[in-house]
Amino acid sequence: MARIVQKYGGTSVGDVERIKKVAARIKGYREDGHEVVVVVSARSGVTNELIARAKAVCDNPDEREMDQLLAVGEQETIALTAMALHGVGVPAISYTGAQAGIVTDSVHTKAKIQGIDAKSIEADLQAGKVVIVAGFQGITADGRISTLGRGGSDLTAIALAGALKADKCEIYTDVDGVYTADPRVVKDAKKLEEISYDEMLELASSGSKVMQSRSVEFAHKYDVVFEVRSSFNYNPGTIVKKEVAYMEKVVVRGVAVDKDQAKVVVSNIVDQPGSAAKVFTALAEASVIVDMIVQNVGRNGVANLTFTVPLTDTHKVEKTLAPVLAVLGGAQVAIHDNIAKLSVVGVGMKTHSGVAATLFTALAAAGVNIELISTSEIKISVIIDKSKADEAARVAHKAFALETL
Amino acid sequence: MARIVQKYGGTSVGDVERIKKVAARIKGYREDGHEVVVVVSARSGVTNELIARAKAVCDNPDEREMDQLLAVGEQETIALTAMALHGVGVPAISYTGAQAGIVTDSVHTKAKIQGIDAKSIEADLQAGKVVIVAGFQGITADGRISTLGRGGSDLTAIALAGALKADKCEIYTDVDGVYTADPRVVKDAKKLEEISYDEMLELASSGSKVMQSRSVEFAHKYDVVFEVRSSFNYNPGTIVKKEVAYMEKVVVRGVAVDKDQAKVVVSNIVDQPGSAAKVFTALAEASVIVDMIVQNVGRNGVANLTFTVPLTDTHKVEKTLAPVLAVLGGAQVAIHDNIAKLSVVGVGMKTHSGVAATLFTALAAAGVNIELISTSEIKISVIIDKSKADEAARVAHKAFALETL
Repeated sequence: MARIVQKYGGTSVGDVERIKKVAARIKGYREDGHEVVVVVSARSGVTNELIARAKAVCDNPDEREMDQLLAVGEQETIALTAMALHGVGVPAISYTGAQAGIVTDSVHTKAKIQGIDAKSIEADLQAGKVVIVAGFQGITADGRISTLGRGGSDLTAIALAGALKADKCEIYTDVDGVYTADPRVVKDAKKLEEISYDEMLELASSGSKVMQSRSVEFAHKYDVVFEVRSSFNYNPGTIVKKEVAYMEKVVVRGVAVDKDQAKVVVSNIVDQPGSAAKVFTALAEASVIVDMIVQNVGRNGVANLTFTVPLTDTHKVEKTLAPVLAVLGGAQVAIHDNIAKLSVVGVGMKTHSGVAATLFTALAAAGVNIELISTSEIKISVIIDKSKADEAARVAHKAFALETL
Repeated sequence: MARIVQKYGGTSVGDVERIKKVAARIKGYREDGHEVVVVVSARSGVTNELIARAKAVCDNPDEREMDQLLAVGEQETIALTAMALHGVGVPAISYTGAQAGIVTDSVHTKAKIQGIDAKSIEADLQAGKVVIVAGFQGITADGRISTLGRGGSDLTAIALAGALKADKCEIYTDVDGVYTADPRVVKDAKKLEEISYDEMLELASSGSKVMQSRSVEFAHKYDVVFEVRSSFNYNPGTIVKKEVAYMEKVVVRGVAVDKDQAKVVVSNIVDQPGSAAKVFTALAEASVIVDMIVQNVGRNGVANLTFTVPLTDTHKVEKTLAPVLAVLGGAQVAIHDNIAKLSVVGVGMKTHSGVAATLFTALAAAGVNIELISTSEIKISVIIDKSKADEAARVAHKAFALETL
């Protein structure tokens, strides 16, 4: 008998039929003798509907009220999931975030979990019930509902698995696990049996959409092993943990492409100390997340500064930098949105040289021009033309023989 | 400056545009210097949608889970209403039933309020905020969400008005107040300025749909004066209180028609002690609410028993009485659903005779046949043919000169 925390996302509980399928799946685990805690998201689409209504009544909705509103989505699903379990003869009880004792700070709409008082859940598990917990939400010390931001339900599941000392934590989603590349683009992409937290984090930040970075970081910090798998079949998924068996042998574990980035070039900056700082201070104050940064000094003592930002922030960048440009002595800004970021990721890179050479050679042979390069200990990212991104992913995948993993 | 509790029903907050109108109205009261506590229902239709989903996942949904589910409807409206107030520059904060400290018993889906800890609301009022409270819901001693059943939001408002020692309690609805008769049927029906709790109760139980009886009973018990008025205009409504100024002078205050009743005739009962008890015990065990009862003994020592039940319960009555009939020596049951109950109500009746005579004479003159009669201290009800109900209401209204009130 194991204690299992399972998280089902919005697609898995998207309508009453799917909720009944989830209930049937949970029943199976319970009949195998397991204790099951289930974390569910809102039905897919519900959160967006609620946000649309909020924006219709108020241009700039208050974040405390937004949390009171958004928590409604998961509260509906927990009750329906508990009912569906009753419908198939399984004792079950639903918990809102507050009822589950998930205490957070007061940073509404992106609260951090401070602790979980799982006594009540523990008692219901002892009593033989399946416990259904609303993902994404908690309660502040002063009794207000809070939400955890994007990927919050994964976070709830991982935190509960830690607090309840669960034997397993399963994150159900609409993909089979973590692949060496996007299988829709790279036909012979392989599902990884295991991946390390670090690699998973780099893949997440490189555009692989399986999970948000913060959930992986949280799991890493509290050493919670979890499995990413599909709610639509019974295939084993990918286990995410600290160290994986074949870590040393394999140099590169995956190729990720992020098409939601734009490249910003600030040119003609008078090259003096503090110029770059002015640019990035302004962007930071506007909450624009800047990724790859390159500066090069050209002729006549003027410099160019190139960096990437999320595609959705390009207007904000233009508005934010306009006043800064004047201060920089007539610098200009150009935004290129026809780019993509391709990354190869693998902890084995640390001890193997030549990964960059292999990647660049392969891309050159395929006629893919590299506009920017950045590296971390376990990742190499390049900015390339968006139209070449899929082809580049296939080329990189082949260059590192990922289909043989 | 007054402290006002206002309750807006599901139609008044039916969509984002109406929520914005409610916010504008509240803003007006606040600019007049009043402290305002607002109780809102779920948007009209939402509760039914949720119930439909519950029934789609489970034939017989658990009542505890039903409450977790249904509470979602009001939680959405409180947040949207608070946001709409922010949108027009009014500080506001939303409270779920649990946050408002509305503690109930554990009879889920029809919980009773046990007490309100209004400290937190009081503090927010002192801080100058409009407080928005979810109607219809509370929390049990063990932290589960409960709901108060039909008319629950009115109850929340009246209970809060009592707990907060409010100067006024306004129940906003889609009608202008309490009328001497249904204005759609009786053209010269008049809106009453005031009505007593007792009269309001009798009207509610006689098919006048303005409010559920239990809210009126609750107000009576705690002596909370409230006003029923429309959220679509600024007309004064009807004030409901213990004693009204013109109580003694006016004999009849209103005429109500209930077309949702059926008449049940159990005939050919062997007339012996306990026969009627057997019938009504069986019905009570099946939770059928029986209203008017008449028994008459016919020839040969057999009796007929006639009574009325809600139209929706007729199948249940047939099923429940089948085994009883055999015991009663071959009695038969007949159900007549083409009837209506007409009632005239007024506390003045207590001290004036002749009300029954006036009513029966007027109905007879109009050719309306009376099938059953029952009376209380302040009400006379008759069962008549459903097709004659509207005409009978007009005749009765005229007989008591209610258009001159």
